[in-house]
Amino acid sequence: MSKPLEQGATIGILGGGQLGRMLSVAASRLGFKTHIFEPGTNPPAGHVADQITTAPYEDDAALTAFAGAVDVITYEFENIPTSALDTLEALRPIHPNRRALATSQDRLTEKKFLQSLGLNTAPFATVDTLEDLTNAIKTIGTPAILKTRRFGYDGKGQARIMSPDDAPQAFADMAGAPSLLEGFVDFSHEVSVIAARGPQGDIACYDPGENAHINGILHTTTVPAKLTNAQTTDAVLLAARILNALDYVGVMGVELFVTPQGLIVNEFAPRVHNSGHWTQNGCVIDQFEQHIRAVAGWPLGDGKRHSDVTMQNLIGDDMSNIATLSAEPNTALHLYGKADVKPGRKMGHVNRITA
Amino acid sequence: MSKPLEQGATIGILGGGQLGRMLSVAASRLGFKTHIFEPGTNPPAGHVADQITTAPYEDDAALTAFAGAVDVITYEFENIPTSALDTLEALRPIHPNRRALATSQDRLTEKKFLQSLGLNTAPFATVDTLEDLTNAIKTIGTPAILKTRRFGYDGKGQARIMSPDDAPQAFADMAGAPSLLEGFVDFSHEVSVIAARGPQGDIACYDPGENAHINGILHTTTVPAKLTNAQTTDAVLLAARILNALDYVGVMGVELFVTPQGLIVNEFAPRVHNSGHWTQNGCVIDQFEQHIRAVAGWPLGDGKRHSDVTMQNLIGDDMSNIATLSAEPNTALHLYGKADVKPGRKMGHVNRITA
Repeated sequence: MSKPLEQGATIGILGGGQLGRMLSVAASRLGFKTHIFEPGTNPPAGHVADQITTAPYEDDAALTAFAGAVDVITYEFENIPTSALDTLEALRPIHPNRRALATSQDRLTEKKFLQSLGLNTAPFATVDTLEDLTNAIKTIGTPAILKTRRFGYDGKGQARIMSPDDAPQAFADMAGAPSLLEGFVDFSHEVSVIAARGPQGDIACYDPGENAHINGILHTTTVPAKLTNAQTTDAVLLAARILNALDYVGVMGVELFVTPQGLIVNEFAPRVHNSGHWTQNGCVIDQFEQHIRAVAGWPLGDGKRHSDVTMQNLIGDDMSNIATLSAEPNTALHLYGKADVKPGRKMGHVNRITA
Repeated sequence: MSKPLEQGATIGILGGGQLGRMLSVAASRLGFKTHIFEPGTNPPAGHVADQITTAPYEDDAALTAFAGAVDVITYEFENIPTSALDTLEALRPIHPNRRALATSQDRLTEKKFLQSLGLNTAPFATVDTLEDLTNAIKTIGTPAILKTRRFGYDGKGQARIMSPDDAPQAFADMAGAPSLLEGFVDFSHEVSVIAARGPQGDIACYDPGENAHINGILHTTTVPAKLTNAQTTDAVLLAARILNALDYVGVMGVELFVTPQGLIVNEFAPRVHNSGHWTQNGCVIDQFEQHIRAVAGWPLGDGKRHSDVTMQNLIGDDMSNIATLSAEPNTALHLYGKADVKPGRKMGHVNRITA
């Protein structure tokens, strides 16, 4: 293991959205500079980064120059093209590692990996043809949900199947992309565990948060979540099992369904996670700094919770409520500085301290 | 009063040190960009700012271009040349206002202003000649302290006078600068109030912090401070009196001596203050965001304290303890990313949560 990065070092971040922005801010607290690699212009993270490279992930020269200008590389999203990883990986350490990325990029690989660890998942079947889907519905039943294996987020690339009659339309919605049928899980609520693992194998988990979605997009995360002590322990242990199995370095978000039969893993994301934004106002060390600490080879920070928090996303037109929100007591606003308000676009979030 | 600034607006900050850096980070939380004006190269604030102008305060064209690129101007230090203010003020709003700057820039003006508000200060006399000093010592007695009227900070520009015999050396130490002799105040401890005032005249104060100095430089600030309820109320009321009298907009640090006869105002700084760094880990809204809110015309945030904190400055060689500090529980590190470690230089601080 290499030495911890010293202040003044530069952390390269692939992706310039709000997660990259908040990672940049956290890096600055530890004396680091950041360098953002992002195809889009005027990325939110660019406002608080020391350097920005604006180039597509196919621009090998730009990737090489970027790698040469940074000390370590991390990312804010998991859909990084393989060819870009090939180039970068040869030049600089990338955390979390490639296996974590490859596993989470494909829902089939992810489900198989989770099952190999003895963890519970929703029943699933691969779907490449309409015939596959028809057969899968026979085995798994309805309601069920058809999802593309790759590139899905915020409810995109998904179709609900309430009866076998929905199969053709759902299959058409996938537009030929390799897909997965997931059986319906009868859960009471969803929680997520934000977990971190350092390069020495040390692990730290934040208290699980309880998630509520609207239209497939996270609406609120509330801590503490409704969980028994036994369920909380289970959640932490299964997150640790995933992190260890991947020899993971960094922060991961693990989404879990709570059922009377136990916790079922929905999916994990190899990065800081929207359901961990509450840590900014609930903990001494938030998920963004925790991720930077791990990536920089520092000891993990103390993630103990000092306050109860409800995080609420500000989506699209929620931005018209800023005047009211900014005057609320016990409330911290976090805006991403995105130039255009669009329906469904995450523009910011509020953390409300509830106790 | 103009409308509150909307996210995407740019806040211009004069000075690129650690205070400007932490102001930039706070501005980003509210969706603002920052533009730093700083004569020195590679300023700490530049790592997290959207734009930097590197130019001296005498460069009128650079000041004009800077003002044209921002929506409002604030600053991280009070010794801004008058000519620069003349140029900037004609082009953009500057908060806090010029009177606050002019009053705090000169210890004599400051003391007279405080007395005009009925507030207690140390006894003082102006010293322009050695004869002035000799006479002042006769009136005020010893021990006393001779200070330059302008440009003093962190104990610089000060000489202790323990007996009349020390007068010639102390006078020589001032190198001809207009000075002030301050009588010794028999105080038990020093506290500071970080207070904010918004453009509508609303005021918010953080809990007073108790300061300990080493070699004239702030070493720790501890909250809560040792104060009776009556003293805390006095501290808040006198800070409010100063803010209102100056029609102040922004955050101010007010240093107070605690004596059996009541609180005595040492000095105030028209900016975020080292003794307010604890708010980053003790409050939902820290002093940096509070300042940005005021300057941007937003409602002041909720400055309620959720944790007890001791802030400790990391000066010079304290940086060799980073490995240990980074592993401490309940501790948040804040490093400024300064390229060179120098004796006496503020390199960062730690906030330790104590309850």
